[in-house]
Amino acid sequence: MIVRGRHYRTVWMDGPRVRMIDQNALPFEFRIFESRDFRTTARAIKDMTVRGAGAIGAAGAFGMAQAFLECGRAPQMRAARKILESTRPTAVSLFKSIKRVYDVARKADDAGGAAAREAQKIADENVEEGRRIGEFGERLLRDGSRVLTHCNAGWLAFVDWGSALAPVYAARRKGRKIFVYASETRPRSQGARLTAWELGNEGVPYKIIVDGASAHVMSRGEVDAVIVGADRIARNGDTANKIGTLEKAIAAREYGVPFYVAAPTSTMDIDARNGGDMKIEHRDEDEVLNQTGRSKRGRVERFLVCAPGSRALNPAFDVTPARFVSGFITERGLLRARDLRRIGGSAL
Amino acid sequence: MIVRGRHYRTVWMDGPRVRMIDQNALPFEFRIFESRDFRTTARAIKDMTVRGAGAIGAAGAFGMAQAFLECGRAPQMRAARKILESTRPTAVSLFKSIKRVYDVARKADDAGGAAAREAQKIADENVEEGRRIGEFGERLLRDGSRVLTHCNAGWLAFVDWGSALAPVYAARRKGRKIFVYASETRPRSQGARLTAWELGNEGVPYKIIVDGASAHVMSRGEVDAVIVGADRIARNGDTANKIGTLEKAIAAREYGVPFYVAAPTSTMDIDARNGGDMKIEHRDEDEVLNQTGRSKRGRVERFLVCAPGSRALNPAFDVTPARFVSGFITERGLLRARDLRRIGGSAL
Repeated sequence: MIVRGRHYRTVWMDGPRVRMIDQNALPFEFRIFESRDFRTTARAIKDMTVRGAGAIGAAGAFGMAQAFLECGRAPQMRAARKILESTRPTAVSLFKSIKRVYDVARKADDAGGAAAREAQKIADENVEEGRRIGEFGERLLRDGSRVLTHCNAGWLAFVDWGSALAPVYAARRKGRKIFVYASETRPRSQGARLTAWELGNEGVPYKIIVDGASAHVMSRGEVDAVIVGADRIARNGDTANKIGTLEKAIAAREYGVPFYVAAPTSTMDIDARNGGDMKIEHRDEDEVLNQTGRSKRGRVERFLVCAPGSRALNPAFDVTPARFVSGFITERGLLRARDLRRIGGSAL
Repeated sequence: MIVRGRHYRTVWMDGPRVRMIDQNALPFEFRIFESRDFRTTARAIKDMTVRGAGAIGAAGAFGMAQAFLECGRAPQMRAARKILESTRPTAVSLFKSIKRVYDVARKADDAGGAAAREAQKIADENVEEGRRIGEFGERLLRDGSRVLTHCNAGWLAFVDWGSALAPVYAARRKGRKIFVYASETRPRSQGARLTAWELGNEGVPYKIIVDGASAHVMSRGEVDAVIVGADRIARNGDTANKIGTLEKAIAAREYGVPFYVAAPTSTMDIDARNGGDMKIEHRDEDEVLNQTGRSKRGRVERFLVCAPGSRALNPAFDVTPARFVSGFITERGLLRARDLRRIGGSAL
C-alpha cells in the first residue's frame, strides 16, 4: 500500500523488532508502532493496534518468532504461544500462523532464525493471496460498478492488498471506475475510519453510510455487489465476520444483490462444521457506549455517546449462513460453498 | 412522563410561549427550551430540539397557533404555514396538525384563541392515542418478553406515552417484566441517547446494541418482538421510519420474529398509495461524519468520527414494505395492512 508516496506493509519484522501501522491512531494520525518483544506484540494484537484477519495472522507469527528469538526454551515457548493465542479468540488465522512458526522452530537447530524465516514466509504468502483475490475478484466488477463493503477488509486488514477491497484496487488498475459505499461499522467504525482512509489514499471515490442504511441503498438499486471479508469460514461456508455482516447478507438476498465473501482459503476453519461451531467473541461494552473522535481543537479522545449509566451488549461478530453467500473470492478463484468442503482438507 | 419525580409533557404551550424538553441537550442535560415566537418554534423543529412524529405534530400546531397570536393576517399566515411545513418534509403529522390549526383559525373571529385551543386539542389527543396504543400493544407482550426497538418512539417522540414504547410501559404497569434492546440508531443515536434515557427514567431494564447487531440477536432467538414507530404510513401499509428500520424488518421475517409498527392512525398519509410515493429526506452528511459526545472532562461537543475529508450519504428514513409488517399497533387496535386501506378515508 502507498501512504504519502511511500510503500508500506501493514505489519513487518525488522531484526527482532515488529513494526506495524498503528491502526488505533488512524485515521487522525499515521504512525508506526514498534514492538521490541513478543508480549508487546501480543498486547498490540489484543488492543487492535493491528487488526484484520491477515494482519493479525502475520503479527501473531512475528510475535511467536520474537518469542523464539528472546528465549527458545520449551516451557516459555508454550506459555508465549498461549499468550499470543489468547489475544483474539475468533481469529483463526492467528492460531494457524502461530502454530506454523511454533512447529518449524521447535524442530530447528536455530529456532529463532527458523521462526523468523517462517513468519516472513507467512507474511509474503498473505500478500500474494491478496493479489490473487484481487485478480479473481475484479472479473466480477464492470466499469461503473458500485460496491458496498462493511468493516475494513482492505490493505490494513492484511499485510498488503486486502481481501474485500483487493478486487476494487485490481479493477481500478485495469482502468475501471468503481464507487464504494463504506458501511460505518459501529462500534469501532472501521468502515468510516480505515476503509475510508484507505480508499482516500488510493483515490477511489466512496461515501460513508451508517450501518442501518445498507438495505435502503440496496432497495433502491444503487448497489451492484456487496463484498465483505471474513474472520472465519466453517467447512459448510457459514462465515463469521464483523457484526452487521449478517444484516447486509439478508438484505442483499432480498434485493437480488450478489453478496461475496473475499478471503484467503486459510480463513477456513476445518474444525468448524458450520456456524454453530464458531465461538462469537463478546467485547467490552465500553466500545458501544463510548466512541473515539477528534474534537474541533484537534484532540483525539473517547466520548460518551449514550445516556449516562447505560449498559450495552457488544457481540464482535455474527455468522452469515452459507446460503446467503453468492460466492467466495479466494486466492484459488471464485468458489461456491460446496467447493470449500472439498478444498478444506488440502488447504490446511 | 416522569422526570426527576415531576410529570412533564414533551412539548406544551403556556400562553403565547411554547416550551419543550430540549432533546438536543439530552441525554447529558435535562433542560426546557422556551420559544416566544413561531419562527423560533420552526427552528426548534428543524434543528430537532423537538423530534418524533407526535411531538413534531404538536410543536407544529403550537407554532401555527403562535403565528396567529402574533399577527393573524392572511398573507403572513400563509407564509408562516410554509415556514413551519418546510422544517421536516417527511413528517406527515406536521402537515396535518398545521392544517387543522390553520383551517380552524381562519374561520374564527378570535383566530389566535381558536388556534391555541385547537393546538391544545391536538396535543391532548396525541396523549390519549399513546395511552391506547399502550393498551392494545401490551397484549402482545408476556412476562419476560424481550423487545427490540429502533430509534426513539417513546415519550419523547410524542406529547406523552409514545408509540413503540407505550406497550412496554403499559405491560410494566400490569407487573410484567420486559427487557428492551435499544438499537443505537446512527447517525443521531436516538436509541442510545433518548430511548435509553427514557427507559432508565422508567426503570425498564435495557441494553444498547449497535444497529448492525439486530439480525445477530434475532438469529440467536433472543428477541420476542420488534416494535418500531413510523414517520409516515402509506395507504397500503408501506412504512417510512428512521433509517435502519428496513434492515430490522427483513431480519425479523427471516428469523420469524413478529415485527410491529406502533403509530396513531394519523400517521397514515392518504396521498401515498405506497412507499414509492413517499419522499425520503436526505440530511446533512455532517450528521454521519461527526458525532456528539461528552468528553471525560464533561464537555459536550461535536467530534469527527471518520477519516478526515470523507463524504457521506445520509438518507434519514427508509421504507419498510407492508409485507414485512406483522401488525400495526394503533389507537384503534391491532390492525393489518388491509385494514389500513379501509380506515384511511375515515381517519383523516
